[in-house]
Amino acid sequence: MNTRARHRLFVPDDLNSGAALSLSPEQAHYLVNVLRLTSGDTVLLFNGRDGEWQAEIAETGRKRAVLSVGALSREQDNQPDLMLAFAPIKKARIDYLAEKAAELGVGILQPVITNYTQVTRVNSHRLKANTIEAAEQTGRTTLVDVREPVPFNRLLDEWPGMRHIIFCDESCAGLPGYAITERVAELKGPAAIFIGPEGGFSPAERDRLLGMPGAVAVSLGPNVLRADTAMVAALAVWQAVAGEWKGIQDGA
Amino acid sequence: MNTRARHRLFVPDDLNSGAALSLSPEQAHYLVNVLRLTSGDTVLLFNGRDGEWQAEIAETGRKRAVLSVGALSREQDNQPDLMLAFAPIKKARIDYLAEKAAELGVGILQPVITNYTQVTRVNSHRLKANTIEAAEQTGRTTLVDVREPVPFNRLLDEWPGMRHIIFCDESCAGLPGYAITERVAELKGPAAIFIGPEGGFSPAERDRLLGMPGAVAVSLGPNVLRADTAMVAALAVWQAVAGEWKGIQDGA
Repeated sequence: MNTRARHRLFVPDDLNSGAALSLSPEQAHYLVNVLRLTSGDTVLLFNGRDGEWQAEIAETGRKRAVLSVGALSREQDNQPDLMLAFAPIKKARIDYLAEKAAELGVGILQPVITNYTQVTRVNSHRLKANTIEAAEQTGRTTLVDVREPVPFNRLLDEWPGMRHIIFCDESCAGLPGYAITERVAELKGPAAIFIGPEGGFSPAERDRLLGMPGAVAVSLGPNVLRADTAMVAALAVWQAVAGEWKGIQDGA
Repeated sequence: MNTRARHRLFVPDDLNSGAALSLSPEQAHYLVNVLRLTSGDTVLLFNGRDGEWQAEIAETGRKRAVLSVGALSREQDNQPDLMLAFAPIKKARIDYLAEKAAELGVGILQPVITNYTQVTRVNSHRLKANTIEAAEQTGRTTLVDVREPVPFNRLLDEWPGMRHIIFCDESCAGLPGYAITERVAELKGPAAIFIGPEGGFSPAERDRLLGMPGAVAVSLGPNVLRADTAMVAALAVWQAVAGEWKGIQDGA
């Protein structure tokens, strides 16, 4: 427990010192009836653009809360330059995945329809809500850009050349030379991690990925992981070896 | 799709060529009524001790299936020498965690009651079932040793000296010198990853961990992750940097 406000909310409004803003009825209900906060209590606010701000509850009603914005508590972080391109999976697992992706610093969440994809409907609104909740809870000031599903080939047709493709290749499981730690440590700049559905990418998709400039196939160990496990594992290793966590070593 | 049997079952029975075994009513129901397998179809069996075996369905009834064990399809793997010592979390998240731990090669799952632990009841039977299902699905031949919850201090009182302690320390988030990749890469031998509850370890627990011979505090990046995310992330990075996935580079 510390003296910082314990509750952290995403709001769509612009944030600056002295601003007054009304919460949505859902957020007001949560603050007033669930958390039992009242006038004078403080919360932290962020909107994905203006950093994190302290705010005080100025007025409350049954489904109403007006906040008065105080001082900036944290500068806005840069948007993470990491995309997760993934074949949609079942509902409970995709919710979990969206949450974990947000926590682990994904900037763009891109559902991709591949040859072996079983699930083609994606509730982007729900995915977005999961990523916002994760940002609220883990102290991020950035939001995940949740995109609509796109067919595999169209995504690659329009691929920006400078974004590295790291693709988790089930057919390399356990093969020497494909360890992710070795293959991604030296990559710099924007990256995208591609994870296929259960069954992996089709041979044609694999060939297409391997033909993209600078694409790197990696193995996530000798055992084939479930798709959702593979995503979280690949994101964590990426951040540790090439991404955000690496800044720690450099004192950045 | 390949010619291997697609379904893989854990059975408690001893496995050897020519053995005949009866499935439990639940497994028989699943095979016969859900998967609609019938006499002559093949499955793979493992028991955590004798490797993986091909087996043919010899007889079926309504809640009854007799299997005839054929040839060994895979040698028994060594039991992973990695423990996850974790503060129990809420039901949905602990189920997920048990599954991910099994997939990511945890040998021992040890719930630990710490000062800030909110959830103290653990359904070990349920955790075990989740780890078995994960082993069935991801092709492991080993089973996770799911232990009963134990108080933090008792666990450390009886700690075997040769097992390294790697503990994820929220108070080091973003500090230079604590990057997990740097700190665990050279560790050899049995290891245990310790993850505290939301709020982390108490100051007294932190001091005790730091005082254990060869204990290493690590940071999982600049943002504090949810406890269940931290566990999966730490396991993945461990396997990539110091564990099973590393064997790939060496061609092991």
